[in-house]
Amino acid sequence: MAKTLADLDTPAVLIDIDRVEANLGRAQAHADQHGYRLRPHIKTHKLPRFAQRQVALGAVGITVQKLGEAEVMADGGLVDIFLPYNIVGGRKLARLKALNQRVALSVTADSPDTVAGYAATFSADRPLTVLVECDTGGGRCGVQTPAQALALARQIGMAPGLRFGGLMTYPPLHGLDRSNAWLTDALAQFRTAGIAVDRVSGGNSPDMWAPGGGPVTERRPGTYIYYDRFQVKEHAASLDDCALTILATVVSRPTATRVVLDTGSKSLTSDLLGMEGFGLIMGTELTIKALSEEHGVIEMPVASDWPRIGERVRIIPNHACVISNLFDTVQLVSGDAVVDTVPVAARGRVD
Amino acid sequence: MAKTLADLDTPAVLIDIDRVEANLGRAQAHADQHGYRLRPHIKTHKLPRFAQRQVALGAVGITVQKLGEAEVMADGGLVDIFLPYNIVGGRKLARLKALNQRVALSVTADSPDTVAGYAATFSADRPLTVLVECDTGGGRCGVQTPAQALALARQIGMAPGLRFGGLMTYPPLHGLDRSNAWLTDALAQFRTAGIAVDRVSGGNSPDMWAPGGGPVTERRPGTYIYYDRFQVKEHAASLDDCALTILATVVSRPTATRVVLDTGSKSLTSDLLGMEGFGLIMGTELTIKALSEEHGVIEMPVASDWPRIGERVRIIPNHACVISNLFDTVQLVSGDAVVDTVPVAARGRVD
Repeated sequence: MAKTLADLDTPAVLIDIDRVEANLGRAQAHADQHGYRLRPHIKTHKLPRFAQRQVALGAVGITVQKLGEAEVMADGGLVDIFLPYNIVGGRKLARLKALNQRVALSVTADSPDTVAGYAATFSADRPLTVLVECDTGGGRCGVQTPAQALALARQIGMAPGLRFGGLMTYPPLHGLDRSNAWLTDALAQFRTAGIAVDRVSGGNSPDMWAPGGGPVTERRPGTYIYYDRFQVKEHAASLDDCALTILATVVSRPTATRVVLDTGSKSLTSDLLGMEGFGLIMGTELTIKALSEEHGVIEMPVASDWPRIGERVRIIPNHACVISNLFDTVQLVSGDAVVDTVPVAARGRVD
Repeated sequence: MAKTLADLDTPAVLIDIDRVEANLGRAQAHADQHGYRLRPHIKTHKLPRFAQRQVALGAVGITVQKLGEAEVMADGGLVDIFLPYNIVGGRKLARLKALNQRVALSVTADSPDTVAGYAATFSADRPLTVLVECDTGGGRCGVQTPAQALALARQIGMAPGLRFGGLMTYPPLHGLDRSNAWLTDALAQFRTAGIAVDRVSGGNSPDMWAPGGGPVTERRPGTYIYYDRFQVKEHAASLDDCALTILATVVSRPTATRVVLDTGSKSLTSDLLGMEGFGLIMGTELTIKALSEEHGVIEMPVASDWPRIGERVRIIPNHACVISNLFDTVQLVSGDAVVDTVPVAARGRVD
């Protein structure tokens, strides 16, 4: 007999594969129509099979955030991997060098120190492609001015083992115009200096429906495969697009209004991202009001028999990316059918 | 050559075994002196070896929060396990029954439904010990009144496969007096009803130095093995007692005051627990001001060359328990020496 949701123990992570397919297709169509390349970030799903599917649909390659994730994706057959991170230290540089032998790899740098580390590690027979990370308002990593970007590009260009690969930014939320202005200014300075910039990598899921044009040639959305409550708040998707939910069981009804689920911060995380509640109960307007490590508490607006002890609900999480990081396996579902149970191959690749 | 901190890749979780030993010994001595039993919660460390050590030092048994954790600890040789959780549903009850054959097991219930599930599963040849969970102000699970506790104890007592094991509470933070008053009132009602209450289980790390006496016969602290920034704020420990730190590398210095570490919400979680910052840099007063998934940002109070790219710092996390849940392995250290690298056996046991 086919396996259904009723056969699963809880908490369990459900991935609606029909919604995944629709989400991936819609994003790729937007990229094709607007003339930018899609380079999806796999941090959200951490599954080689979905990365392969993204590439099959037209993605130019994938993005990862950790060297360990890149290694897992290379093992999974992905051949074009962007690691937009400053890779620092001898052990990591050795791993990076080994990885660069296997796949078309690109990384970022935002300082002369980081470039020096790359330059000392790589040689002309198998050069490393390095993009310059630009802080266009996000306030995280990145050079602060176009002049610094230019200086770093020159340092990269002078190293025999390195190839200048372009510019990269993680744009500030709601700051796409400012970010694009920064990059446009930088591109003008590079043009004046006679340095070609083949690739300008930007963007993320909240900005993914922005029209094309402008300085960015590729975008790196991640969450768009699953979406989540935050993406819905940011108008990137509707609740009906959310493909990742957590199946939970009611384990306690201490009062007529209090409902306690078997999902706490160890399965939902405590990410609020500026919202009320730690997740939305699918098909309702109820949110999880309080979390401890292994319990989630819903406060019903009025006394209610529903849901009873033993009944199940599905939770749309605030932030889908961090959920994949907490579970060893996820359940691929279509409607109520459980199609497959898959290990989260790149989970826990912390370094 | 002996392995040291310098040989580790980052981020890495460091467990200072000398501090662990001191923390465990001090807590057991307090329990012995004040006449209560210690039943440590293993959610914090998730390591059978530390659970064994806690028992060797005098703990009466251990506490776990998930059935999967209990199974791992039983595999690890632990023989007296308390699972203070409503276990609901056929699949979980079958696992609970199998576990009850292997170890001295006790669980909780806070509703007639949960007790009915236990009663239908267990039989007199191998009864299950069930404590009644009491909401003494914590606002999570638990019966709301001593009268409800009494009714539930009677339901347990009438089931041939169940044995009434006493009362359990998760006391509210800063509400020990209120919690004890609730329990004292309940015990009086049980006495009047002629029902013996052998065991009253309460307490946690923030309350662990409260004097003995009162209704509680055993306490279930967990975090006290490692402590963390929250426990220090709650005066349960000093910073010098904190045994778990995260080793991080500086990967970017975008400005003279901004320092970016290779540790984000996927290695620290976003738990704030009412504090400023997502962790404290050991040996300093600096905290992590902002987190993204794989980056942590420190803002220095004044322009500073230190720390440079490639330098390492140790982070005292806000909440130690959730860290063990994110890493597949932890490093046992003594001073700068890495003594052992151990898998976190009960990590990811979500159900």
